Amino acid sequence: MSFAAVQRPVRHELVQVQGLLRDAFRTSIPILNRVGGHVLATRGKKFRPTLLLLTARVRDRLDESAVLSAAVVEMVHAAALIHDDSVDRSALRRGLPTVNGLWTDEMAIIMGDYLFGHAMGLMVRNHLDHPLEVLSRVVTEMSCGEALEFQYAYDLEVTEEQYTEMVRSKTGTLIGAATEIGAGCAADGGSRRPVAKATGRSRRPARGARMKFREFGERLGVAFQIVDDVFDYLGDPEVTGKPMGSDLAEGKVTLPLIAALREASEPDRRRLKRLALRRSRTVPQWDQLRALIEKCGGFAYARECAEGFAADSRRLLDEALGPARSRSAAAVAARRALDQAVDYAVRRDH
Amino acid sequence: MSFAAVQRPVRHELVQVQGLLRDAFRTSIPILNRVGGHVLATRGKKFRPTLLLLTARVRDRLDESAVLSAAVVEMVHAAALIHDDSVDRSALRRGLPTVNGLWTDEMAIIMGDYLFGHAMGLMVRNHLDHPLEVLSRVVTEMSCGEALEFQYAYDLEVTEEQYTEMVRSKTGTLIGAATEIGAGCAADGGSRRPVAKATGRSRRPARGARMKFREFGERLGVAFQIVDDVFDYLGDPEVTGKPMGSDLAEGKVTLPLIAALREASEPDRRRLKRLALRRSRTVPQWDQLRALIEKCGGFAYARECAEGFAADSRRLLDEALGPARSRSAAAVAARRALDQAVDYAVRRDH
Repeated sequence: MSFAAVQRPVRHELVQVQGLLRDAFRTSIPILNRVGGHVLATRGKKFRPTLLLLTARVRDRLDESAVLSAAVVEMVHAAALIHDDSVDRSALRRGLPTVNGLWTDEMAIIMGDYLFGHAMGLMVRNHLDHPLEVLSRVVTEMSCGEALEFQYAYDLEVTEEQYTEMVRSKTGTLIGAATEIGAGCAADGGSRRPVAKATGRSRRPARGARMKFREFGERLGVAFQIVDDVFDYLGDPEVTGKPMGSDLAEGKVTLPLIAALREASEPDRRRLKRLALRRSRTVPQWDQLRALIEKCGGFAYARECAEGFAADSRRLLDEALGPARSRSAAAVAARRALDQAVDYAVRRDH
Repeated sequence: MSFAAVQRPVRHELVQVQGLLRDAFRTSIPILNRVGGHVLATRGKKFRPTLLLLTARVRDRLDESAVLSAAVVEMVHAAALIHDDSVDRSALRRGLPTVNGLWTDEMAIIMGDYLFGHAMGLMVRNHLDHPLEVLSRVVTEMSCGEALEFQYAYDLEVTEEQYTEMVRSKTGTLIGAATEIGAGCAADGGSRRPVAKATGRSRRPARGARMKFREFGERLGVAFQIVDDVFDYLGDPEVTGKPMGSDLAEGKVTLPLIAALREASEPDRRRLKRLALRRSRTVPQWDQLRALIEKCGGFAYARECAEGFAADSRRLLDEALGPARSRSAAAVAARRALDQAVDYAVRRDH
């Protein structure tokens, strides 16, 4: 299925987001603009800004602050990815060269830091207090997720609970930030400034609803990541743009393997461990590992989990939105697109 | 000269800063706490927090928000250093092992990001709006400085102006942030929250004075960095904890060389270029390069410049503080310590 359909209700706003991203690389420093141009040209489908804008629209609150916040969330995401690629020594992402691949790890660290700083500056200058509050928490949680991933590397004893918490903090939190911020955007600029308080007309949803919007995004993010982790074993590199098995090669022990190890018979578990712990694998060894995971139900279990998180996220969105009442046509279209986004997360082919 | 004398008027507050830094590494993630413990144990003399606290005290405004801000500034500094060491592949800093040296570059990137995020979270949760405003600008400027350094690497045509601007953004801005934030700290918590406005008693200095406090720190920072750059040629590795010539080995063209190239006769310039552009240098070649820079007055010029920036910074502090009037004994002691800090920046031996 295509993501373009999901984006349709907010396509004009996504163009504005792209403009804000372009502005970030209009500096007086040629190298920054050159690397930035490359980052812009190779950025993906804007999953997080799309979700933020749709969540804002579904509440009829799609204003300038939502567009700014969507750009900020994409900058934080891009910064994290650029740092990640450098950490993983990846030369390609989705088939395109990475910053560290084209330039150096040094430039990747600088570019990530620049984007973090620029995102922070945009929020402060535009008094986006609610996004600031959300993202200051999430940026820390994301690096905690990365630290957990580091801690669990090459550890075949990692449990499903540990994996899920790691994925939630690494991937879920930023998607949860997108939906929480989108829901919080309002005519007062999404800020906690006195003007909104004084008039008593803060259009931010109550704390309970806000948490549900956040959790809607977090679960969606976890579903998204589990599907990604299955692709590492079964995806077509021509389509995913990433060589198969690269997660395991970096020591990342993900759900299909965790589930298979748990369910395997003793001899199968020994074989799984032996194959998974090798420094490198031949093609037949790789095929054998995949066949064993399949036999022990690892892929089926992971897909089921992803579907479970997707179902959770649909339910949370329902609860967050409450009874339908009279919504605008735009809000109805956005609601449909959010449902499609959940479908997309679990049914995409790359 | 010792830095302990400079720190004396704020030594109790520096203990509190250390406590806040320790709290940053009380997480549920063992690896983060372990790496954090190492970062804490190897952190330097707290130059930036000291300046922030002294600037607050000299205005009789040393409150809790100043202590929090001092910790935040040190976190941002530590994050930048950790990223820097990874970028430079340094295994040692001031004679002690770096995060990337003991763990990996991956851990260094994660740790830096965590510290940035944690610093941002502390500011947002404590409503440190003024520090947020200052640091959101400065974090971007610092990475611009890093980008400039990258851009100018191995370029012997770099001018003194370009070098100075690079050093200002890379090193000066954060020290300027420390003194600007210190000056802005006030009983209202250094924030722009309505309570201060309503009472009309914002104790923040006027914009003009605030800029002078910032520039006081920036110039001091530039002086500090120029002295560091001289150490790379003339410092005793036993004292600096850093092998000589490591800047040039990384392509960093600094003021002694820039000045020497500008003043040299044509044959000397050719020899300087040949020696400076070598991929590696033998000990006699290194000695020859240093002798040439000395002959062309590069070191003398750099030292003179550092003294010039230090003098500027003293003058700016005078202007920022205005006529002495009746200051508390604590403020007078802090004022003396700030003067000593400037002396320290240019006269230290490491």
